[in-house]
This record gives sequence, C-alpha cells and structure tokens, in this order.
Amino acid sequence: MMKIEGTRFLAFCEAVLAIAHEGRVYLKKDGIETRAVDAANVAMVSARMPKEAFDLYKEETGILGLDLPKLKTATGLMKTGILTIEQDGKGKLQITDGKTRYSNALLDVNTVRKDPNPPDIALPASVAVDAKELADSIKAMGLIGDKIRFSLQGKTLTLTTEGDTDLLVKEIEGEAVRSTKEPAMSLFSTDYLKEISRVFRAADTATVSMNTDHPIRIECTVDQIELQYLVAPRIEKE
Amino acid sequence: MMKIEGTRFLAFCEAVLAIAHEGRVYLKKDGIETRAVDAANVAMVSARMPKEAFDLYKEETGILGLDLPKLKTATGLMKTGILTIEQDGKGKLQITDGKTRYSNALLDVNTVRKDPNPPDIALPASVAVDAKELADSIKAMGLIGDKIRFSLQGKTLTLTTEGDTDLLVKEIEGEAVRSTKEPAMSLFSTDYLKEISRVFRAADTATVSMNTDHPIRIECTVDQIELQYLVAPRIEKE
Amino acid sequence: MMKIEGTRFLAFCEAVLAIAHEGRVYLKKDGIETRAVDAANVAMVSARMPKEAFDLYKEETGILGLDLPKLKTATGLMKTGILTIEQDGKGKLQITDGKTRYSNALLDVNTVRKDPNPPDIALPASVAVDAKELADSIKAMGLIGDKIRFSLQGKTLTLTTEGDTDLLVKEIEGEAVRSTKEPAMSLFSTDYLKEISRVFRAADTATVSMNTDHPIRIECTVDQIELQYLVAPRIEKE
Repeated sequence: MMKIEGTRFLAFCEAVLAIAHEGRVYLKKDGIETRAVDAANVAMVSARMPKEAFDLYKEETGILGLDLPKLKTATGLMKTGILTIEQDGKGKLQITDGKTRYSNALLDVNTVRKDPNPPDIALPASVAVDAKELADSIKAMGLIGDKIRFSLQGKTLTLTTEGDTDLLVKEIEGEAVRSTKEPAMSLFSTDYLKEISRVFRAADTATVSMNTDHPIRIECTVDQIELQYLVAPRIEKE
Repeated sequence: MMKIEGTRFLAFCEAVLAIAHEGRVYLKKDGIETRAVDAANVAMVSARMPKEAFDLYKEETGILGLDLPKLKTATGLMKTGILTIEQDGKGKLQITDGKTRYSNALLDVNTVRKDPNPPDIALPASVAVDAKELADSIKAMGLIGDKIRFSLQGKTLTLTTEGDTDLLVKEIEGEAVRSTKEPAMSLFSTDYLKEISRVFRAADTATVSMNTDHPIRIECTVDQIELQYLVAPRIEKE
Repeated sequence: MMKIEGTRFLAFCEAVLAIAHEGRVYLKKDGIETRAVDAANVAMVSARMPKEAFDLYKEETGILGLDLPKLKTATGLMKTGILTIEQDGKGKLQITDGKTRYSNALLDVNTVRKDPNPPDIALPASVAVDAKELADSIKAMGLIGDKIRFSLQGKTLTLTTEGDTDLLVKEIEGEAVRSTKEPAMSLFSTDYLKEISRVFRAADTATVSMNTDHPIRIECTVDQIELQYLVAPRIEKE
C-alpha cells in the first residue's frame, strides 16, 4: 500500500508512457522502479521513484504489470490530492482519493515485454543544460526536419536539422560534466526526442551524454522521479 | 416583442439544443416555454423562461418554430448586450442589439416534431447535489465507459462506470430531498448525460430524481431559466 | 544586411502569406517592398517596411525570392529578439538571433509569380473604421454566409450576409475619409476577407475604399508595416 500525490503519480505514468504503454514496475525496499523499451527497440526509459517521494510507502516486494494509458486517464481524474494505491489480492490495482475509487486489472507480468538490461555503453562526453531550452529546441527542430544531429564539444551542445531547402542550427551552452577532445556527434529521429522532451521540459536541468555514432542518454529529475532516457542513433547515409 | 440579455437567450437556446435542434416555443402570459425530445426518444427537455427573466416582455400568445443552431450562432455574435427579439409578420424572427440585425425564417410549427406529454412517472428518490461536481463526474465517467450506473440512497448519489478492464466509482454527497428505503438504481448512456451536463454545469444545484430501472430527472435553474431533463434508462443485460 | 525585431519580420511574412506563398521582395534605399496576388487572381497585397522599421538597414538593392511559409516557421522559432538577416552570396538567406542560425534557399526570382501592376481603379468612397470591429464583423459574417455585401455611404459601412434561411446585417460607424452621393456597393467572398482580417485585426484603424461593383481596398499599418489589400468583387446573380 502506498500513498502519493496524484500529480506525482501522474508524472510517473507519463514519463514511462513517452516510450511504452505497459510498465513492469518493481516494488523495492527503497521505492519503485521500472525500465521499458519502445516497440521498435529504439528508445529506453528507466524511471525510479524513491520511498521519499511517497506520503506513505509500506515496504513491499513484487512486480506490478501496469496498463499505463488507463492509469494516466484515471489519475488525471483524481490528480488533486493524495491517492491511496494498493493491490486487492484479486489481480486488481485499487486507487482512491477518498471520494472516487478506481480499480484496474493488473497486467500479467509474464505478458508485459521483458525489461531489457541497460546496454553497456561508454558515453564519455556529458553536459548539463537547461531542460526547457533543450525541449524548446527539439520542438523547433521538429518543425523543420525529421532528424536532429547532436554535437557535443566541451560545454556547447549543438543541434542541427535539415529540411528540403533549409537548415536550422541551435547552440545550447551548458555546464560541462565530462569533456572529450573530439566532438561527440550522432543523428537521432525527431519523434522520439519530442516525446521525451515533453517529460523533461518540467525538469530544471537535463544531463546529455554522448559518444560519436552512439546512443544519447538524457537524465533528469521531475518531481522527485529520477529519469533516464536512452535513444539509439540513426545511421547516416553518406 | 421581447428584450432580453443576449447571454441569457443564448443559454436558453443551448439548454434546448442539448436534446433537439428545433424548438416549438410557446409564448404565454407569464413567459416562454418549450419541451422537446431527441430523435431517438431517449431524452426530453422542458425549459421555461419566466417573464421576469426578460428586460421587456410584451404579453404575447402563439407558438414559434425556432431553428436553434442558427439562433445559437447569431446570438453568440451579439451576446454582449440586450437583444430585441420580434416576429416581423412575414414569418421571420428579427433579432437586434442595435448595431447588428439578424433575421431568421421561423419554422412552420406543423413541421416541428410535436412536443410530447411529459410521461407520468414516479421518481420517489430525490437528492440535490452540487451541479459542477455532478457535471465533472459525468465527464470523468465518459473517459472510462459508455454507460453510467446511478444509484441513490439517502443523500448519497453513487455513479459507476466500467471499461474493459477497469471500474470507476464516484460518490457525491448531496442534500436529501426525498429518500426511499431501497436504493434507486438505473443505468444510462454517457452521451446524453454529457450533453446535458454541459448545461447544468452552470447551475448551483442539480436535483436528481430516480427510481429503479426508471428514467432519471435532472432539474436545475441556469440564469433564471428553469430546466428539467429526463433521460430513459438502458436495459441491462444480466 | 538588416537587423529587425523578430516579431516585426514575422508580421511582415504573415501579412503577405494571407495572399501568397512566395514573395518577390524588392530591397530599396528606403526599405523593402513586395506585391503579390493569389493564385486565382482575386486578391492582391502590397506590403512595405520602411528603413525606420529596421534596427539596422544597410542600403541594398536587388530582389529576393522568399519562401514565406518556411520563413514564418523559422522566424516564429526565433521571434523574441533582434534577427540579423543577410544573403550569403550562395543563394541562401541567413537568419540568426545569435543562438539560433537558420538558412533557407532563396527562390529564383524568375520562377516567382511576377508581381502585377496595381490596377488603375477609382475608389471614390472611403472610410476609416476600427480595425478590430471590422475583423470581428467579417468573422461573424463567415459563420452565416460565404459572401459579404459591403455598402458604404458617408461614414457608415454596412456589411450584409445571407444564409439559406437567414440574414445578418452589421453597421460600422467610422470616420469619413471621402464620401460619395450614392452608396458604393459590392459583394465579396468571405474567405479572402477572413484571411486578410487576421492581419489587420492587429492594426488600430483600417481604411476601406470602395466603388459600386469594384474591388475593395483595405489599408492599414501593423507594427510600422504599411499594408494595402485589394479584393475583386463577386459578380451578383440577379
């Protein structure tokens, strides 16, 4: 049994929904965790909500299979206030804010896509940027092209996109976390980044980690939810 | 000839439009009245605007056939101010706010669906609830299922809806108007209730009257317009 | 090379876009100018942005072929701040706000529809009206009919539109600029006027000039951009 702010639980559902519709959520001593990939295996999300993010967290163990679009809808209805969330022992999740009661059939965790192991990759260049500036830039790039080139050198993250007849380049100055001699450069689909940017827009800072022709990792904290997104690069036709 | 606040005449049109597109409006000594059913004979509206709701009401008699979607559009254009509404003797309704003049052909009242007699039904359980809370609850239910079960016992009105794998239950505490020993329970289509709730959301209080497997009656007053909606129940498959 | 407020350059693009997608823009000593007609030859725009509207205007000559929808998108992204706009000598227009750089291929001016000579027409009746009131009236008319009759007599501009069964008439009182004995009356398509009204809604005053069964001219100034629209009349079937 757990008690949590409705808006925070909603944010957790939405953070995972940016990548996947079903969540295999692990209940652990110190909080809840999930990891999911999208259907095309291009993007991965790791989300963790520590015990401290809950108003009450009764130490539990187990795995819950969550139907995230349904939970988003229901939590959206009850979002102002503290929700009490518990399993009823009959395969259902019960959520209530006192006046409204919602119950949803838990998914059989064996049918939920297995959460992958995080790939073992080296992303030596890393920068912390203003999350809203990065989100706005990705949104702007999406109006021009369907792919964005990220290039990271020192504390300057440069985004570039090309339309049929035009080119948009945006430089974002951040705080260098780890630098590399050579710029790290990779190309990504705009679609995945747009979905993810809707989530990290609410964070203060997004930490971007890269390597040339490697996945990009974007880390942030939204309302005490620790998030990590990984997006695979597009192969460039040269 | 009558003079009336544009926003109030617009509200009158919208209240009837929740159920029907044409209105057979009776001009009486003490105000105007209409009653209409929807095409499927599932829902009925009775609307009455007393003389006192008008800035000027020249005692008239007769029946007007109103083209409500057109009147809604035109009144929406002129809504800030006092409208002067009159028949021109040539089968047209003339509406003006002084700067804008709108005229619309009255419908032949013989072609407007005859207003039905209100059915003679006993709805012994009755409760007065916060109109906005009821409207919000109906809207929320509509996101989960297409039917809502209403159950009324004492002063507690309980709404329940089911999706494929989920269930939403909402209790609304009101002021008991008339109680019954047994709870009154019936099932209704979400669609009709959603249309009607857009109207009564603007009221302070909605009075809900029920009986088991009977129509539901929802009464309210919006900007001096006295409204009564009746919705037939759905037969449950058991 | 020129420097200009992003919002002003965006307004210039949008003012021309109400009529055409491509702009043949003349760089002159005292500012920039363009003139374009729509594909159906019904409406024409003349737009002029004087030197004084720029933060920096390096005297230039030449003609630029602008891809207006693309420039609108890109300028919309960078609109808060001063833009530096220049040709790069390789057929591209470069726009930057310092942090974002956008480049767009200039259109071959020989492929851009030739700007027409302004027709030599006499529009002796003229009135200055509140631009927002005119824009609102055109929008309202568009909900009822697809053509609007304009009638100008003295300082009273009367708009009339007919639906299947209804009629909307709106009188706008303005400041007479030039009067004629007889009212000037013409009929216009709502669509063109709606597009244009989105632009002049931002002006204080719109000056309307007419003659019977002649084009209508609407002149206004939006953020130092001098605009003139001309719309051809519809032939009435009598």
